[in-house]
Amino acid sequence: MAATDNAPSPQLFFETINAFQKSAALKAAIDLGLFTAIGGDSVTAAELAARCQCPERGIRILADNLTILGFLTKDAASYALTPSSAVFLVQSSPAYMGAAVKFLHAPGLTEAFTDLSSTIRRGRLHTTEQGTTAPDHPAWVEFARAMGPMMAPTSLGAAELVPLDASRDTRVLDISASHGAYGIAFARKNPRAHLVALDWEAVLAVTQEQAQAAGIADRFSTITGDAFTVDLGSDYDAVLVPNFLHHFNAEDCTRFLKRVHAALRPGGKVVIVEFVPNADRITPPPAASFSLVMLGTTPEGDAYTFAEYQQMLVKAGFHDASLHPLPPTMQSAVLAVA
Amino acid sequence: MAATDNAPSPQLFFETINAFQKSAALKAAIDLGLFTAIGGDSVTAAELAARCQCPERGIRILADNLTILGFLTKDAASYALTPSSAVFLVQSSPAYMGAAVKFLHAPGLTEAFTDLSSTIRRGRLHTTEQGTTAPDHPAWVEFARAMGPMMAPTSLGAAELVPLDASRDTRVLDISASHGAYGIAFARKNPRAHLVALDWEAVLAVTQEQAQAAGIADRFSTITGDAFTVDLGSDYDAVLVPNFLHHFNAEDCTRFLKRVHAALRPGGKVVIVEFVPNADRITPPPAASFSLVMLGTTPEGDAYTFAEYQQMLVKAGFHDASLHPLPPTMQSAVLAVA
Repeated sequence: MAATDNAPSPQLFFETINAFQKSAALKAAIDLGLFTAIGGDSVTAAELAARCQCPERGIRILADNLTILGFLTKDAASYALTPSSAVFLVQSSPAYMGAAVKFLHAPGLTEAFTDLSSTIRRGRLHTTEQGTTAPDHPAWVEFARAMGPMMAPTSLGAAELVPLDASRDTRVLDISASHGAYGIAFARKNPRAHLVALDWEAVLAVTQEQAQAAGIADRFSTITGDAFTVDLGSDYDAVLVPNFLHHFNAEDCTRFLKRVHAALRPGGKVVIVEFVPNADRITPPPAASFSLVMLGTTPEGDAYTFAEYQQMLVKAGFHDASLHPLPPTMQSAVLAVA
Repeated sequence: MAATDNAPSPQLFFETINAFQKSAALKAAIDLGLFTAIGGDSVTAAELAARCQCPERGIRILADNLTILGFLTKDAASYALTPSSAVFLVQSSPAYMGAAVKFLHAPGLTEAFTDLSSTIRRGRLHTTEQGTTAPDHPAWVEFARAMGPMMAPTSLGAAELVPLDASRDTRVLDISASHGAYGIAFARKNPRAHLVALDWEAVLAVTQEQAQAAGIADRFSTITGDAFTVDLGSDYDAVLVPNFLHHFNAEDCTRFLKRVHAALRPGGKVVIVEFVPNADRITPPPAASFSLVMLGTTPEGDAYTFAEYQQMLVKAGFHDASLHPLPPTMQSAVLAVA
């Protein structure tokens, strides 16, 4: 075994250079509603083709490849869903993630990876100057519409971590509020909290809809514009900074956190939600590999370690920084006190 | 452990939908000569950036992601090549595979996967009518230039399997000769063999160069045109059909094999080299997943099982079909007697 395992092999090269085809197969299956069409059944390629209204060859090849990838099981000639596919890829499931493909494969995101060597060589994006950090970038409307359901476990975990004072009215600011999941989780858990959502104008229309749907519209207001320059208001008990800092360089993050510090009451908390790799920057892979997304889509973003966040927070005037993994998600919360 | 492993998780969804970024990272590393720049050394991101003449941030993020993917090792802050990367991804290595990216990521191939659901739904390619099976398709010139080194182990294995009569002059026909690796391996192993290479005109210029370089130009001739209609000649001891049949439907494969049968001497052998999955069509994964490439790039191609090849061969008049894996490659040889 050991000898075989150590023998040089081109297998990983082939698998990786062709990995784009795996993304394409999964996207096609979601586009065709293949997982939804299987549901709780065990079906042959012919039956599945009929349900998807497609010729059989393509469905059979797709289903075999989805089995190889681990999304289906195959018993003799019949395909069925794995437990994870049933939960996350069937449209009627509350945890359905298929809609996220609209953001994750939006042209602005996929094009960012068509010439990554040029981006690396020149030290600036090969597509546009600011990537997804440009003002009013349309990707964030797509993100707000597509990614909300996926954020539920992380946002609930974050709200659990930071209970607000229930004996008085409190104020929460949600930076890059987007789908609203983080702020709404705090507002629901704290009935006396008023939620202020900050984002680009077109995005806030989505946040507003979500606040309405969550029944917290009477405790909800908005701030429109650039989080680096707009007036943030003051006297907040908590400022949520979910999936925002990774888009910027460490100096800009520190500058931004100073603004957050100034907007918090003394003793108020900043709640950063992020992909936080270990100090080795290669584990755990789901968090560490997020740096690649930032390399492709932002001029200076990164997946920062906890030590790096600590340093930014101290420079910005915070104390008692702490790290809290949010299982089963790939993300962590970094908390600190103003 | 078991409970965790069985708990539904969106991890596979994320990893697969973003897998295109892995291909992009590997392609960027090859484009930048990153593996060649590391060579036998252990280098920091700063040193590697200097060697690649790139800003450090991009090189650091890329190197971390290549480590996560298994192409590099990282010890403290220093990166080094894995044994496989040293053999296959350093430009001075005889087994260098980096050039294959030119074919594997040629626009015609990558575009085939941008709208796979449309291809599946309509039962025809969303790009062009015939895909890579169109006459004189330029992808095959790229293939011939890029893929030769990669075929060396398979072509040597195939030539070993079918020794020709050394006591007389023999004749070998190489269908879709391309880089020439298969035919040249037979010609080199059998000094009295004359090699006839068949392919499109522009491709045969590459084959001719390779025959010259291999020192067999005096035992080499060509047939230009469509393998389904051009005169194949006759009296061959062996007809090589490497990586050709997977582009077509089973009926066309059978029709083609009848032509091969007619061109062979009685007792002559057809030597098919292919990705041959097991009857379950999902193992071994490297062979079985090749069906996805055919779904994306050909109107009716597939990865056929040995039973399917047997059936085609019997219908075409062959007997004694046999299957021979060609380790360490992902391919197998199917032999049969005329």
